[in-house]
Amino acid sequence: MNDISRRGLVKLAGIGAAVATQLSATETAYGFTAGASETIAPVAPQTHKFNMTVEEARLSVSRGFETNVWAYNGQVPGPLIHVREGDFVEATVTNKTKGVHTIHWHGMWQTNSWRSDGAPGINGLAIESGGGSNTYSFKADRKGSLWYHCHVEVPNHVGVRGMWGPLIVDPADPLPIEKEVTKDCLLMFSGWNSDVADDYFAQEDPSGHLNYFSINGKSFPYNQPIRVKEGDVLRLRLFAASVAVSFHLHGHDMLVTHRDGMPVPYPQLADTVHVAMGQRADVIVHMNNPGRWPFHDHADHHLSNNGDTPGGLFGIIEYEEVGIDDPWYLWAHKKYDPDFYFTESMKKGYGLITQSGFKATPSKS
Amino acid sequence: MNDISRRGLVKLAGIGAAVATQLSATETAYGFTAGASETIAPVAPQTHKFNMTVEEARLSVSRGFETNVWAYNGQVPGPLIHVREGDFVEATVTNKTKGVHTIHWHGMWQTNSWRSDGAPGINGLAIESGGGSNTYSFKADRKGSLWYHCHVEVPNHVGVRGMWGPLIVDPADPLPIEKEVTKDCLLMFSGWNSDVADDYFAQEDPSGHLNYFSINGKSFPYNQPIRVKEGDVLRLRLFAASVAVSFHLHGHDMLVTHRDGMPVPYPQLADTVHVAMGQRADVIVHMNNPGRWPFHDHADHHLSNNGDTPGGLFGIIEYEEVGIDDPWYLWAHKKYDPDFYFTESMKKGYGLITQSGFKATPSKS
Amino acid sequence: MNDISRRGLVKLAGIGAAVATQLSATETAYGFTAGASETIAPVAPQTHKFNMTVEEARLSVSRGFETNVWAYNGQVPGPLIHVREGDFVEATVTNKTKGVHTIHWHGMWQTNSWRSDGAPGINGLAIESGGGSNTYSFKADRKGSLWYHCHVEVPNHVGVRGMWGPLIVDPADPLPIEKEVTKDCLLMFSGWNSDVADDYFAQEDPSGHLNYFSINGKSFPYNQPIRVKEGDVLRLRLFAASVAVSFHLHGHDMLVTHRDGMPVPYPQLADTVHVAMGQRADVIVHMNNPGRWPFHDHADHHLSNNGDTPGGLFGIIEYEEVGIDDPWYLWAHKKYDPDFYFTESMKKGYGLITQSGFKATPSKS
Repeated sequence: MNDISRRGLVKLAGIGAAVATQLSATETAYGFTAGASETIAPVAPQTHKFNMTVEEARLSVSRGFETNVWAYNGQVPGPLIHVREGDFVEATVTNKTKGVHTIHWHGMWQTNSWRSDGAPGINGLAIESGGGSNTYSFKADRKGSLWYHCHVEVPNHVGVRGMWGPLIVDPADPLPIEKEVTKDCLLMFSGWNSDVADDYFAQEDPSGHLNYFSINGKSFPYNQPIRVKEGDVLRLRLFAASVAVSFHLHGHDMLVTHRDGMPVPYPQLADTVHVAMGQRADVIVHMNNPGRWPFHDHADHHLSNNGDTPGGLFGIIEYEEVGIDDPWYLWAHKKYDPDFYFTESMKKGYGLITQSGFKATPSKS
Repeated sequence: MNDISRRGLVKLAGIGAAVATQLSATETAYGFTAGASETIAPVAPQTHKFNMTVEEARLSVSRGFETNVWAYNGQVPGPLIHVREGDFVEATVTNKTKGVHTIHWHGMWQTNSWRSDGAPGINGLAIESGGGSNTYSFKADRKGSLWYHCHVEVPNHVGVRGMWGPLIVDPADPLPIEKEVTKDCLLMFSGWNSDVADDYFAQEDPSGHLNYFSINGKSFPYNQPIRVKEGDVLRLRLFAASVAVSFHLHGHDMLVTHRDGMPVPYPQLADTVHVAMGQRADVIVHMNNPGRWPFHDHADHHLSNNGDTPGGLFGIIEYEEVGIDDPWYLWAHKKYDPDFYFTESMKKGYGLITQSGFKATPSKS
Repeated sequence: MNDISRRGLVKLAGIGAAVATQLSATETAYGFTAGASETIAPVAPQTHKFNMTVEEARLSVSRGFETNVWAYNGQVPGPLIHVREGDFVEATVTNKTKGVHTIHWHGMWQTNSWRSDGAPGINGLAIESGGGSNTYSFKADRKGSLWYHCHVEVPNHVGVRGMWGPLIVDPADPLPIEKEVTKDCLLMFSGWNSDVADDYFAQEDPSGHLNYFSINGKSFPYNQPIRVKEGDVLRLRLFAASVAVSFHLHGHDMLVTHRDGMPVPYPQLADTVHVAMGQRADVIVHMNNPGRWPFHDHADHHLSNNGDTPGGLFGIIEYEEVGIDDPWYLWAHKKYDPDFYFTESMKKGYGLITQSGFKATPSKS
């Protein structure tokens, strides 16, 4: 949508381009920043060309539970794609599996590139099995926290086969709040069905009976903490990839600043944020209350691993100031991975960035 | 609520009656129209008197799946009721089935007409079986996208028997955006349970195990496309009649302008809109990106027909500019019904308007 | 969070402390009150010290359904804790059951008191069975409709064992609308699983198969009406304690004024309000339309008692002006309890206030 309709131009008279965040006095009193966004001085758009694959692999989600997945670049979640608003993307995807697949770029408009939208039998073809490939080309003219996923037999491929990953488009006009962020974390929520773990084609719709749940492919306690220090400004980008969540954080209110990647004109504080299937929500939180604080879905059924609790969609924020030394602390001996929530990857510039920690075990084929 | 409380009158001092839509610069830049609504010059209220029936019938929802329904005027969805804010409605409903039923007018205040609210055993009686009738009389003083449905054994009658239809009350003070709409579509989402297809009384609550899902009574691909041309301004009125939805549209952002029929003072753009059970959401979309674009629920389990994918809550927007000529396009040969989303019916003035395309097969009785 | 970060102080320049509710002309026309909150003249903070227990008991939820519960102070819901913003709380909890438990104070920041947050194995220890006790001490510096619940094996303890209760923190700066309220009702929604009714430890996660649903521990019709008179301003505080709800009220629009206890800067009218798991929503409604009006969840499956309808999450608002005299009215002979929705308890000042009507039957131990 790079041409504003004539009707739209007429309406623009008198309206500047800046988006203002309007916060109540409460939010401002709590240290959040209102004000108008500033359009960053234009940068020449880049073109990002990269190769992706779909691979058969085996993902360990929880103790005692592994499942067949179709993994973009052999990993679940798929690799981070990070670009700037206005950049171009050219992704060549090679399908090395026995199934057929696509990539749909969820939230991306595909302005004048509808054939790169990835809906098989509708705006394109599926990528043939056993080595077929397809190139998706589009302009990243839609900012924000987007994601990509397969669009073949969605209840199976997206529901329980891990075919999803994050697509982050840095806005040309970030909000003042965004510029204060000191730690950026991506959390992708999904469900799994052990009945179909060993057979890719057991059911076209295995999404009705989910018994494992994960953040970034791992059920609690096999995921990771988020480590912060007092004064940090934490941004959590929440992706309801194959389950909806009611995301609750202890010890802090969250300011919901973006929905589906778009700024919310009147953000509001919340302790529990609902993200419906396919949606994203960005929240920003002031790390001003040292402690060890759970974050988790409040939907009871998402908090177990096939009935064993605690499990599922659960994690912990650990402040440096209090540490992890209590001997009874269940993560006192956790081997820490600072990139489990893509934080390090988000600092690695633009393009396709892989995460070795998300690698699934390649299947023998 | 046609008398404003004295307390309310005191507060009105200094406030005009016009509702203003406040859009961020982003929404305005994308061609959406901010500004104050204008109260249309008053028109003398009309009284709409019409007859309705409840009939036993058989509805074909998906290939291989038909189900017993109780159909208002023999159709599912029920017929469109379209009136102007301030009109009066007098609906005489005759129940030709073996069950008992009512009509509840969801969202309508029933100002001084509580006995027409349709809650059996609470504010009225159910309509007797085998020919009993009841007249509901009320003022349509609540504007917007409302709906009507039975209020007897709701998990069965509304959940899986198709006892619901749209009730559209045109506002006296439409928003500027509403006046730009060139195509108006109503989408009613529901679920079905094949276990109880052949026996109306098999279970009082069959809503726990839904295995078919439909828009306006048809599962994909047995529903219809929405056909547009570039420059259209499309309004989608989404009704979560018996399933909740996370409604995603490819290729465009949607502006959520109304919730439960009431204008949203600060509408926001979204690519995925959550509509909880019983709620309605109105979205307005600029058709400025030619292509063929899926729209669908993002809840995986709603995308299959008893496990077969693709299915369920799914449809396609087809732009005239790109056409349907690709031989692999799965709707290349679709027999088009321009009224499947009530678009033509919405142009037929006020009153009760039936849709022949929604007729179910009358049961032999 | 009693110290505003230095960053926050800088941003406060020019912003007063008052939160203004911004209503559209529509909401104001319907009698709701916009305007700035006024900070109440400061009152010296009180310290509330009280004892709580966890007790094994048997709760009657619906006809033919009783279940083992772990009841705070022997009742489900747990007792009301009602304090003023800025007060201190010191709750000593003694666990008289065979299980282990905690109390998490959902929404409370635990500013500088993270070890009172109640997450076992993370920021504290569970309270030992058979008489162990723990004291939770914190400042109630977070206003609004909060709640408390166990944080051990949440899918069981919170999901189906009744371990939850309301925590209301009166704000130092109430909105004008709040001051107009004449009747305050708390509604806590939960689910139950009859498979595990008789065995506390049958399943760690029994939340996947709920077949009974209750408001404040009782399924319709075993709960209570809300009795009002014309001119009342009714506040409903909705708590999604162990089920999410799509809360619909007949005959009136509701103004959603608070989410998770925090004021909504731009409240909006709705006829159906979604409250996701763990969230709270406060709505304010003008009682200006005499009648008998259902209120209920619109999720079909929550409207039955193990398949029998009507049941589950359903209630009725009864206006004094129309009374209950119709012989067919299903609650014509209801024995009324004016405190079933905590209305009377909310008038009893600050501290821990018990409700005899919620007492469960103590188990023989």
